[in-house]
Amino acid sequence: MTALEQLIEALKRLPGVGQKSAQRMAYHLLQHDRDGARAIAQALAAAASQVRLCERCHTFSEAPVCEICSDTRRDASLLCVVETPADQAALERSGSFQGYYFVLQGRLSPLDGQSTQAIGAQQLLARAAEPAVQEVILATSFTAEGEATAHVLGEALRARGIKATRLARGVPVGSELEYVDLGTIAHALVDRR
Amino acid sequence: MTALEQLIEALKRLPGVGQKSAQRMAYHLLQHDRDGARAIAQALAAAASQVRLCERCHTFSEAPVCEICSDTRRDASLLCVVETPADQAALERSGSFQGYYFVLQGRLSPLDGQSTQAIGAQQLLARAAEPAVQEVILATSFTAEGEATAHVLGEALRARGIKATRLARGVPVGSELEYVDLGTIAHALVDRR
Repeated sequence: MTALEQLIEALKRLPGVGQKSAQRMAYHLLQHDRDGARAIAQALAAAASQVRLCERCHTFSEAPVCEICSDTRRDASLLCVVETPADQAALERSGSFQGYYFVLQGRLSPLDGQSTQAIGAQQLLARAAEPAVQEVILATSFTAEGEATAHVLGEALRARGIKATRLARGVPVGSELEYVDLGTIAHALVDRR
Repeated sequence: MTALEQLIEALKRLPGVGQKSAQRMAYHLLQHDRDGARAIAQALAAAASQVRLCERCHTFSEAPVCEICSDTRRDASLLCVVETPADQAALERSGSFQGYYFVLQGRLSPLDGQSTQAIGAQQLLARAAEPAVQEVILATSFTAEGEATAHVLGEALRARGIKATRLARGVPVGSELEYVDLGTIAHALVDRR
């Protein structure tokens, strides 16, 4: 394979990038932006070697403990459980949560061999057992696997006497009822307040 | 900026990749495919330093002269002019052209300061003047700029007594007339044979 073919093959490892997009990216970088190619190469190598997981919450961090976990002004009584660092970043951008996070290593998926062990349930139970924690908010996805994960973790937490709640299900802000799917409407009715 | 933020910024230099896609790519690579991150970094760096332009046709090549230009079995009487290495690769995949290529450095775009000099017209005229060349096929894009480029280059070639032709315009293979745009139908009528 030539260097160009190897580059196209490598770019196909990016999520959502197939043969056509990879070709377009490779041709664009080589023809118009070689500095960009070098910048991306450098940033990838740096991130792959420098970014690790926070010892406390398991999100991405360059330090042993991430910025949020190091921030003592946050509310230690609340612990929010998410599936991925990306989910944590989305919650943090909403600006509506002041507690701490715990990032799972994915979600339960028995078919893919993702057990409660593999997603870090043991570490979560240890973290949630710290005296300061009053409530664990399960913010896994509202998919079948995310719901199953929340269910299993919720049972385990409650068995240890720890209060576990789930994010509210309902109609998204800004949407017209006519276009909302029926499952969401049914849940919004059941969970009405 | 953290290494993660720098990676997201760098990935946004890829064509068609905005903030959201860049985030998704960065999170995916760091969480599931660090080997992929390193492989892409390595392939980018290698391609940026090893891939240069063929001295003869100006397509991407690792050798001073590309494989096609080095292939003496091709038809030296035909020279096909394209805008980019990607266009050349598409023509080559069609398997319907056995001559040699000349890759322009883009297309005429006076507003962006792309003059005939900048796209390599001088080198094209020198290459087309070689005794073996009987016909130059102008295969620039069928956009306003591509058409203008073909027109200017065609005039210059004919002024030097070199035969210059253009790819046929018409109805794409596999399309139903009902859904073909009117400009294409008009051209297909004029160019009927």
